[in-house]
This record gives sequence, structure tokens and C-alpha cells, in this order.
Amino acid sequence: MRATAENVLLTDLYQLTMLQAYFDQGMDGTAVFEFFVRKMPAGRNFLVAAGLEQVLDYLEDLSFGAEELDWIAGCGRFHQRFADSLGGLRFTGEVQAMPEGTLFFVDEPVVRIVAPLREAQLVESRIINLLQLQILTASKAARVRLAARDRLLVDFGLRRAHGAEAALLSARASFLAGFDGSSNVLAGVRWDVPLFGTMAHSFVQTHDDELLAFEHFARSHPKATTLLIDTYDTEAAALAILPLAHKLAADGIVIQAVRLDSGDLGEHARRVRAILDAGDARAIRIFASGNLDEYAVQALLAAGAPIDGFGVGTRMNTSADHPFLDCAYKLQEYAGRARRKRSEGKATWPGRKQVFRRFDDHGQMAGDTLTLETDSHPGTPLLVPVMRAGRRIATSPPLAEVRQYAKAQMAALPTALRRLDAAASYPVEVAEPLQELARQVDQHRG
Amino acid sequence: MRATAENVLLTDLYQLTMLQAYFDQGMDGTAVFEFFVRKMPAGRNFLVAAGLEQVLDYLEDLSFGAEELDWIAGCGRFHQRFADSLGGLRFTGEVQAMPEGTLFFVDEPVVRIVAPLREAQLVESRIINLLQLQILTASKAARVRLAARDRLLVDFGLRRAHGAEAALLSARASFLAGFDGSSNVLAGVRWDVPLFGTMAHSFVQTHDDELLAFEHFARSHPKATTLLIDTYDTEAAALAILPLAHKLAADGIVIQAVRLDSGDLGEHARRVRAILDAGDARAIRIFASGNLDEYAVQALLAAGAPIDGFGVGTRMNTSADHPFLDCAYKLQEYAGRARRKRSEGKATWPGRKQVFRRFDDHGQMAGDTLTLETDSHPGTPLLVPVMRAGRRIATSPPLAEVRQYAKAQMAALPTALRRLDAAASYPVEVAEPLQELARQVDQHRG
Repeated sequence: MRATAENVLLTDLYQLTMLQAYFDQGMDGTAVFEFFVRKMPAGRNFLVAAGLEQVLDYLEDLSFGAEELDWIAGCGRFHQRFADSLGGLRFTGEVQAMPEGTLFFVDEPVVRIVAPLREAQLVESRIINLLQLQILTASKAARVRLAARDRLLVDFGLRRAHGAEAALLSARASFLAGFDGSSNVLAGVRWDVPLFGTMAHSFVQTHDDELLAFEHFARSHPKATTLLIDTYDTEAAALAILPLAHKLAADGIVIQAVRLDSGDLGEHARRVRAILDAGDARAIRIFASGNLDEYAVQALLAAGAPIDGFGVGTRMNTSADHPFLDCAYKLQEYAGRARRKRSEGKATWPGRKQVFRRFDDHGQMAGDTLTLETDSHPGTPLLVPVMRAGRRIATSPPLAEVRQYAKAQMAALPTALRRLDAAASYPVEVAEPLQELARQVDQHRG
Repeated sequence: MRATAENVLLTDLYQLTMLQAYFDQGMDGTAVFEFFVRKMPAGRNFLVAAGLEQVLDYLEDLSFGAEELDWIAGCGRFHQRFADSLGGLRFTGEVQAMPEGTLFFVDEPVVRIVAPLREAQLVESRIINLLQLQILTASKAARVRLAARDRLLVDFGLRRAHGAEAALLSARASFLAGFDGSSNVLAGVRWDVPLFGTMAHSFVQTHDDELLAFEHFARSHPKATTLLIDTYDTEAAALAILPLAHKLAADGIVIQAVRLDSGDLGEHARRVRAILDAGDARAIRIFASGNLDEYAVQALLAAGAPIDGFGVGTRMNTSADHPFLDCAYKLQEYAGRARRKRSEGKATWPGRKQVFRRFDDHGQMAGDTLTLETDSHPGTPLLVPVMRAGRRIATSPPLAEVRQYAKAQMAALPTALRRLDAAASYPVEVAEPLQELARQVDQHRG
């Protein structure tokens, strides 16, 4: 059996133990689960919906193979009739969700699953796993984009992302949320994320002469050359490439940029800019990387650092200041009756919900209302049907289109919520019909 | 082309651009790269080596398939001769490494790759990606084990780990570092990690009656039943299960434990323990989960909370207080000459290195010496050969055996380094031959 992301056994054991109990009791009513974030990370003002695409892939492909069924039957925890019952299990339910790229807030359902109980329960672990990661990195990347203004932004985080899938999906999520591309080749192949790359220090070090390393690299990549100039002495390297740049230009080879990756990036950028300008190399851009996040990028630009692009890795891909979300996938209705969890500090709003968003005269977001799906309310409903009877309703848009939608969403973000350094609160009102349902459920303890 | 962890294109673009330049220049000398951690995360006293197994798998399987070669030839960045040259590329080098479970410190090489330049360069991105994740989670898990003393410790973090591979590999790494098991079914299938699972709140909520939910679950799992009692009112549920426990016992069904997942876990545990003891149910254990890490576990046990086991998820799997390591894979030698990077704040020790560890009379670690591989020194050498000519030298030990080795390593950890709340420093001396080589390299700027 292969231990891959696609294996249905990538789930928590309790999903299977609950499924056997449901099977034994013949409980197969319709269950409604919603995924939402319980708490806004400190200092954050908004979240970006992402990961729905991978959730729909997962639901469409969900099934137990022969090896997985054998394992379940043979592991000593389950009985044969239960294992047999899983053989034909597919996801046959429906999904309503916010389109990827939608901005959202605490308690607002991002994805709703409506399906026979066993199907809806089984998928909890992987749905949270997929949605949390991309919401986390898309939301972080959107902040880096706010800080970077119109500068080039490239995801450099493959190496320190948490494993292969995190590297791939954070490349996807950061592009969706406004990055210009990634160094991750497979993400480029898979989703047409534009690819960027320079050279490593090791390239310079394998050569006895730094300048010879630059020339070798440029001649092998005449169309797109960025030289990493901080291996030994940044300013000395900047000075040394001036005659090289003119020599290469004669052969039609253009040095597009230099990359700085250590030390005081702002100070090096200023000195290197001065050296390049004085040496008649104004066209050479300056690209910076190394320990960057939205705060560092904002500080560099606020100080006027002449940096044209940023490689942002680790801290974006791992959402380092908030590497997880307090999020949940909770039962809201079963067999036609609304349900609610009342655990301390973790109470949830019951029932099938919708979010209506209002905009002001300038197209800025003005406030959301959380209410029952059946309630009609002014504003734009954010959740839309995306899957019926276990199949996508429509072909998914290409990622570049999702990115345009996210960009439009960001353009509607109120000014107070665009700041990185101060938490602002966006009005999300809980409508009376939903409050009333919560009271009713409490009375009946459902 | 499938976007999976096994795809050789899961790499940074610059690896491929550098490879083309090396190809064009005919540079194919032997390169030596070492992976090491540059800086100890604040408050941490040691790190646990982990992930070597997956690195060796990756190196043994490394190759470009037809689809990947077509992409490279057709993407507009590379020439056909270069793409063709990759067709036969395999990893043919050797690897020396610290066995998984070895404790290590800053600047100490954990894995060394010695191979023809292109092979050794290409693998950088994925090697860092694999090693960082498991070192990070194993090191965090080892701290949770220190805090939890002999209590049961289960990985509950699949849902908020960063994607599928992070969920799997953090389950593996935490078991390696002293956890007793995981809720992650696929990790159990793949590495024989013992599996644990209870029920979710949704299970209780789908029933109109909490006690009926408990009975249904217990009857479906007569051999191993843990009941989640905090959905509505923890103490009321504890009281209510007493008659149920006695009724089920008559049918040979044993309630092993109750799980608490919200509120003040220590206070609830004390009250629930009192209720269970007073109700002649002393055998029922108390298992706690929810927002736990090593500090929370330590505080609960220090306050005498009667908790027999902990489910630790999110904060362990994401290493939430330090979600990344300042680690690197750096060129140390090329074509027989030692090399060194001198970028500000990122200078490295050149050459092929070994770590010798000394122990005191009580078997406690007494100090390490970092020196050249060719230097002989008192103590135990930590790096051993694990791969030659691209193949493992020996079959890898089962994970349970690695776990035993890690346990022995932890037993040798000096008392000062076992504390969670104060950084202690462990002596790592840089021997004179290595310092001398660094001076020589600087003179020659290699």
C-alpha cells in the first residue's frame, strides 16, 4: 500500500471507529458539516479562502481500494461486515463554498458538506488538513503583497515548507493571493505558476573566480540572468560585474538583475544601486531575499530601499508567526435537526448558514451578516453550490483567473484592514434567525 | 505528469539552471555538501536527527521520466542537449550521516553528500525539505516526552499539520522521538506506529441522547473504548457514565478511558477523577487533549492533574513556537579543494567534517568536538557511512528500533539540557585542524 496523499487511510483513526458505530446502528441520515475559523490570529485582519480545489479533487476520488479494505478487516479493530460496507463507499453529497480567493472572517462557513453521515464524517481530517494549509499561506501571502506594493514577489519557500505537499500547495496559495510566481518547478508545471530562479552560493563557490562563475552562468542563460553577488563581498561583486555586463551585452546577453541574500539588505541595496548607476548599468534590477516577511518588506520599502523584487520563503510558506489556525469542521445538522456543540470556549452556531456581504458606494466591503441559509438578506451571498451528487457542478477556473478574483477581493478591502501592524475589526453581525435557532437547539440540547 | 512528492521536478528552478551551466562548462568534479543547523531555536537545548530514511529513499529513486524531460526541453529555458543529458542521471554518490535519533547541535553536520557536482546540487531542495520537517517535529516531540514523563503520548495533529506529507512524517518523527503512537491511520499502516483513537463531538451530537451515543460506541468497540465527555457538561457526563460502565461491564465491555478536550483540563480532570473514584470506577483512565504542548503538559503534571495520557497535535506537528529551522545544505569541498561561504552572518566551516562526542562516567554526554573527517580525536564519531554508489549500505532498521536508539540518546542528555524553560548550552568545540583549514580557505578565497 502506498503512503501517499491520495490514500483514503490518511485520516484519523476515530473517523473509522465512528463509522463502524454508525454502521452498527444503521445511522445513515443526512449530515451537514461546516468548516470555519474560530478565532482570528492575533494581529491579522482578514483571511483568504483557498484549498477548495483540492478538497473537491479529494471528494471526487474518495474510495477504499482492496489493500485498504484488507487492512481494515485485518487490523483487529473492525468487523468484516463493516469493512465490506466500505467497499462501495463514494462521496455522493453536495458542497457549498466560498470561491477560492474570497476574503472571510471568524465564524463564517467557508465550506459546507451535506452528505450521508458516514461520508460526511470520514472526510473531516483531510478537509481540515487541505483547507487550513492553503488558507494559512494565502492569508500570509496576501499580507506580503500589501507590504510589497507593486514589487515583484516570488515564493522561495520549497526547502523549508513542511514537506512536499506543503511546498506545492503554498506555492499555489501564494500565487493565488498575489505573488508573481515561485521557484518551485513542479508548481509551475502543475498550475502554470510563473517560475523564477537565480543561482545558489554553491555555484559561485565551485568556481575559483567569482566573476568567471557569473560569466559561465550568463552564457548558459542568455535570456534571463540574475547573479547572486553576496557570496564574498557584495559591493566588490557589484563593481566587478560592470565590465562583465558590458562585455556580455556585446554578445547579446543581458544581466537582468543581481540578488542580495545576506546582511542589511536595505543598506546593501542602496550601495549596489549607486555602484550600478554610476557604472552605466541602470537597467540591472535589484532582487532581495533572506528571512523576509511582510514586516521586513514593509520596513525596507518605507526606508526607501531601492529593491525591485523580493524572494519570500520560509516565513510565508510556514506562516511562521501563526503556523496554524484555530479552525474546525463541525456538525451543524443531522437528520433534519440543527445541532450545536457547547464545549467551553468552543460553542458553535447551528444549522446551514450563509454569509451576506454589503459594500459601500466606493465598492469597499462594509459588513457581513451571518444567518441561516434559508434567510433572505441584503448583500451578496458568499457561499455558492460547487458540487452535487459527488461531482463538480462546473469545471474549475484556471488558477490565474482565481488570482484575478482574489485581486478584486483585495481591492475591496477597507483601508483600516490593510494595515499590517494594528488589528482592526470588520463588522460581522449574527442575524436574529440564527440566534433564535441557537437558543432553540440549546433548549432541546441537540 | 503527476504532482507528487516523488516527482524529480519538486525542486527549485535554480537547481536546473545551475545544472545547465555545469553541463555547458563540463564541470563534473566531486562535490561535498553538508546539511547542518546554523542556529539553535531560542529556548531549545538540543535537536534530534530525523528524516534520513526518506532522504535515502529519495536518492535511490532519483531519475527524470520522459514527461519531465519533455517539460525541460520544451519550457524555453533549457537546450535539448542538456535535457538529453538528464535522461541517464541517477544518484551515484555516497552519504555519511548521523543515525536517526541522534541528538545534535548547531554547526554539526547531520548528513553529508559526496557525489558528482550535478547530482549533489540537484538534490539540495528536497533534502532540506525532508530533513527540516522531521528534525523540527522530532525535536519538539522529544520535549513533549520530557514534560510528559511516563504518561501516554499520542500524536493528534493530522488535521492541522501542513498537508499530507507533513502529517505522515510528523507522525513518524514524533513516534521516533518518544510518542507512544498516533491517530494517523496511514502512519500506522506505513511504519507500524501504534494507533489510537476515540470519538469526535459530532458522534455525540448525532445522537439525541449523549449516554446513548456512549453506549452505541462502546458496543461497537468492546475491546477499546474511550468516551469523549465534554460536548455539553463534562462533570455531568462523568457522573452519567457510572451506571453505564457497570451495565456494559456485565456484557464484558470495558470503558478504558474518558477524554477531556476543552476548558481547564487540570480542574476538569480533578473533578472527573473524584467522580469516577467515588463511583467505583477507578480503572477508567483520563485522557486529555486540546491546545497542548510541552509547557501545558508540564504545567498540568506539576499541578498534580490526574491525567494518564495526552493527545498532542497542532503545536507539536507544526512545531508552533519555532515552525522552521535556520538550516542549510552547503558546499564544503569541490574537485578536491575545501570551500567556504563567507556571506555576513552565514559563514560556514569548510571541508568534510566529523563530530566526536565524549561521555562522562555516568554515561551522560560531556561535550562534542567538530573537526575534519581525517582528524582522529577521542570520543565516539557521530557520522557513519550509510550509502555508497547510490545504494544503501545496509537495510534500514525498523522504526521501533530507531525509537529505542533515540530513547537511549535522550537518557544520556545532561540534566541542564532537559529543562524546557531555560536555555543551557552544550559544549561544542571546533578543533584546531578545522580552524586552520578555514583560515587557509579564506586566504585562497575558495
